[in-house]
Amino acid sequence: MTDGTAPRRRGRPARTAAAQGPDTRARILDAARTEFAERGYDKTTMRGIARAACVDAALVHHYFGTKDDVFAAAIEVSFEPALALTAILQETGAGGDALAGIGERMAAHFIGVWEDPVSRTPLLAIVRSALTNEAAAAVLRGFVLRRLLERLAAELDVPDPRLRAELAAAQMIGIAVLRYVIEVEPLASADPQEIVRLVAPTLQNYFTAAPPPA
Amino acid sequence: MTDGTAPRRRGRPARTAAAQGPDTRARILDAARTEFAERGYDKTTMRGIARAACVDAALVHHYFGTKDDVFAAAIEVSFEPALALTAILQETGAGGDALAGIGERMAAHFIGVWEDPVSRTPLLAIVRSALTNEAAAAVLRGFVLRRLLERLAAELDVPDPRLRAELAAAQMIGIAVLRYVIEVEPLASADPQEIVRLVAPTLQNYFTAAPPPA
Repeated sequence: MTDGTAPRRRGRPARTAAAQGPDTRARILDAARTEFAERGYDKTTMRGIARAACVDAALVHHYFGTKDDVFAAAIEVSFEPALALTAILQETGAGGDALAGIGERMAAHFIGVWEDPVSRTPLLAIVRSALTNEAAAAVLRGFVLRRLLERLAAELDVPDPRLRAELAAAQMIGIAVLRYVIEVEPLASADPQEIVRLVAPTLQNYFTAAPPPA
Repeated sequence: MTDGTAPRRRGRPARTAAAQGPDTRARILDAARTEFAERGYDKTTMRGIARAACVDAALVHHYFGTKDDVFAAAIEVSFEPALALTAILQETGAGGDALAGIGERMAAHFIGVWEDPVSRTPLLAIVRSALTNEAAAAVLRGFVLRRLLERLAAELDVPDPRLRAELAAAQMIGIAVLRYVIEVEPLASADPQEIVRLVAPTLQNYFTAAPPPA
């Protein structure tokens, strides 16, 4: 159990032995993302992930613990492009103000992530799983809260920064649902730059504007 | 097959005969909404709807045709509160301008629909079904396009009115997903009026503002 290698077991086939090594974890994670994306949370099993990664199921437990833990790790990898928003927040906009134009940069970043099928497919799988399974929703809730929205909210100088960050996230998730899942026209075929142009003021308002009088 | 009553069949049990009448259609529709809400689109069957409505399955086919047709009818009933937006659009805001304050009135209306469990439950069932089943997505796509967004877009005096109406719908759907399904805090526990206050400028911008320079 040391050095990231798995325990040896008697009588295991050669492919299991060959599977051990520093990138076994990465291969299991790849297999897990594919399984969750194709089958959804409910129908994905630890055994199925192990089979897809050509390793013993005990190795999946060794590296990740429970199915929820593998799902959380898969979410984390799938959200990596989205997490680049921290870098975006640290860029400076016009006049050296980090929040100048942040709405447009953020909208462009998110639409870019969703436009790329490589990042879109696992994100859609996560959204679908979380909408239909409470365990998956709990994992996403914990992850989204802990990593994505808290980081964003920490950069904002407005009242209710977390609530505003979530309303911005809600705008982008809703667009993803209508454009890529339900495929409602004209949104489904709209030019990505046109969407960015229309959505940028919405995000900018959540991130920087003082709230209107109550 | 006339006067909205079903054909008589020999040897049917008394409860089927008793089920015939002017409100049979309404009772089947109620049962269908409950079945779709509880089981989702995939697991709902015409036979199950018939059983829940205490009628013969042939009656369900008689009144509605296919499963997709029942689903479309159930969507239509579930979206009735949302369709009240036409009335909202025809109210006049400040200074006799129908679009003055429309963002706030619309946000308050939608949050009100989602806050009421009676209207929320079937709407959530529809969103879940459409996210996981292509046939359900197609029905929602057709319905949303035909009824809800075209009506709204027709009232707007902006470029790209349909696209803007859909971006506003995306904002509200995203809020529903994060608040009621994923239950991300602080959005899940936020005061509905606070959400309306923060979201109103977003909708107002989509419905009335000229687009920012490209």
